[in-house]
Amino acid sequence: MLIALFPGDGIGPEIVAQATRVLDALAIDGLTYEDGLVGGAAYKAVGHPLPPETLEIARRADAILFGAVGDPDCDSLDRHLRPEQAILGLRKELGLFSNLRPAKVFPELADESALRPEVASAIDLLIVRETNGDVYFGEKGFRTTADGLREGYDVMSYNEAEVRRIAIAGFEAARARRGKLCSVDKANVLETSQLWRDVVIAVSADYPDVALSHMYVDNAAMQLVRNPGQFDVIVTGNLFGDILSDQASMCVGSIGMLASATLNGGGQGLYEPIHGSAPDIAGTGKANPLATILSAAMMLRYSLNLPEQADRIETAVAKALADGARSPDLGGTMSTVEMGDAVLAVL
Amino acid sequence: MLIALFPGDGIGPEIVAQATRVLDALAIDGLTYEDGLVGGAAYKAVGHPLPPETLEIARRADAILFGAVGDPDCDSLDRHLRPEQAILGLRKELGLFSNLRPAKVFPELADESALRPEVASAIDLLIVRETNGDVYFGEKGFRTTADGLREGYDVMSYNEAEVRRIAIAGFEAARARRGKLCSVDKANVLETSQLWRDVVIAVSADYPDVALSHMYVDNAAMQLVRNPGQFDVIVTGNLFGDILSDQASMCVGSIGMLASATLNGGGQGLYEPIHGSAPDIAGTGKANPLATILSAAMMLRYSLNLPEQADRIETAVAKALADGARSPDLGGTMSTVEMGDAVLAVL
Ligand SMILES: CC(C)[C@H](C(=O)O)[C@@H](O)C(=O)O
Ligand SMILES: CC(C)[C@H](C(=O)O)[C@@H](O)C(=O)O
Repeated sequence: MLIALFPGDGIGPEIVAQATRVLDALAIDGLTYEDGLVGGAAYKAVGHPLPPETLEIARRADAILFGAVGDPDCDSLDRHLRPEQAILGLRKELGLFSNLRPAKVFPELADESALRPEVASAIDLLIVRETNGDVYFGEKGFRTTADGLREGYDVMSYNEAEVRRIAIAGFEAARARRGKLCSVDKANVLETSQLWRDVVIAVSADYPDVALSHMYVDNAAMQLVRNPGQFDVIVTGNLFGDILSDQASMCVGSIGMLASATLNGGGQGLYEPIHGSAPDIAGTGKANPLATILSAAMMLRYSLNLPEQADRIETAVAKALADGARSPDLGGTMSTVEMGDAVLAVL
Repeated sequence: MLIALFPGDGIGPEIVAQATRVLDALAIDGLTYEDGLVGGAAYKAVGHPLPPETLEIARRADAILFGAVGDPDCDSLDRHLRPEQAILGLRKELGLFSNLRPAKVFPELADESALRPEVASAIDLLIVRETNGDVYFGEKGFRTTADGLREGYDVMSYNEAEVRRIAIAGFEAARARRGKLCSVDKANVLETSQLWRDVVIAVSADYPDVALSHMYVDNAAMQLVRNPGQFDVIVTGNLFGDILSDQASMCVGSIGMLASATLNGGGQGLYEPIHGSAPDIAGTGKANPLATILSAAMMLRYSLNLPEQADRIETAVAKALADGARSPDLGGTMSTVEMGDAVLAVL
């Protein structure tokens, strides 16, 4: 089983290193790694954020363990050369359309949330975010209006096949959890959302056991603060999912804890923490590697079919937290390596 | 001075009635009202959510006091007949592009927020949301893809003139407050945002006294939970502003408290609570009228140039809360009329 390791920029290499230490400790038979350059690191080395060699490794791999991309040095490059194109390109080229972002409070961390502990501790939700379409991948550019003004534009769209497959992912996830699916859109304004809603309703006929509701995105952003415990699975488009999942991560306490998986139709997946490259703390040893370690656990579960090993990692992380392991984002002083050590000590 | 009264749907008539009671109590010389039909109520009466007579009243008025629109009976109508078109149409037809949404915690209500009291009590921010452009008003519809699939689409765009005028509104507001402006966009993905950011930076040259920062919308949604006290003024587009302002409202405690003003270039304004028509509680007397009463105060300040009268209302609301006035959304049992009574008693 081949794992592509794409550490990327900023804190990426530091956190991925801790995840591979944890994977190594499990001594899984036949696991091999191949490294690839992505993001600003790739641009600086070979002139492109997603070089062909990297894409080729990704295509061959069973799973991709991804750190983070984003580098302030690259902010004024042409859009197609910016670090973010690595993650957008991998999602698109490999058809990774189903981005799963679970948010659950570790009891030890309920006090870290900006939410009241009784509100935060009720959070146990999964955001299923579409990542192959929407305004991310439509036609975009600059043009001149009839009055001679410069205008930026981006076309938002979803077709019925794109919505159907992510709706199915949402219903399946809800069926495997508490049986509640909330579809988030802005159908009172957007035709893209109207099509989204129509298709989700059509798919729901195949899932009579799942309770489907619909919520406008503005209301969802509000409800995620007011009463996040009401949600089981949220299914939504690329842009709304980007916003709501970051918001949910903070409700949980720290974005340094949240893992994600992005799957295609063939079981291949990309696994990454939902936080970014945090250039401000890169190299200082302050990054929390737990989101990446938990992403590796998701990888074992979803792409490598090793659920017991995934459980082992997740249990070890919970135990390390219970034993007091705390990086700065969790109010502690432990370094990236010490956080890795704490998980390894339990394993 | 002519005020257009557009109560609309659901709880709209109940809350607007309390706001006019409060205005009447101020006995302002020369204030006249004219009623107009909007939303589902207008559709049911005359077949259109924004009838020409209503638009004509709006054009003549110095200010519009608006309740709320939205009616589940109308959800399957053609988009151009749905209640929401009333508010979208008024914003567009009257050029009401600058939507001001202040969020500040009344000390008495800090305990109502889902956020920890120490996080919630630090909130004192203003969201300046553009309301004439973005994906709300671009070309939209359904089309068929090359593969014969049904597709919904909406074009997002901003031109430089649209961004310039809302950026100026943002900088002016920041200058009149604590001198900090945070522009929220998604420039790492959207060309619309790239143009937005370029223009905001260009305008900033005229405001050396305002500290400008930029934040991606996903990060902003996270920061509004983590540490909302860091924000003074946020300026953003129509869609992101819709999401972030609802989120901020809940950080404050209840969406039943938040007022808004939407201004055009000529001092004309539309004033409305940011909550919706709440059809589930319409007619039960459970609606909190304070957001509408506070919207009337904003109207006196921004469109009628009566700042002392605006202060009187705002002080009366604060006093009523300090005296224990609480509607159900604030954890109490007082009815809509009793909440109005409580404010009037102070005045
Ligand atoms: C880096 C950026 C393009 C990306 C996105 O918006 O999808 C990130 O925010 C994420 O959520 O994975
Ligand atoms: C009713 C709806 C069209 C509207 C909007 O999205 O602008 C509302 O949510 C608001 O924020 O005023």
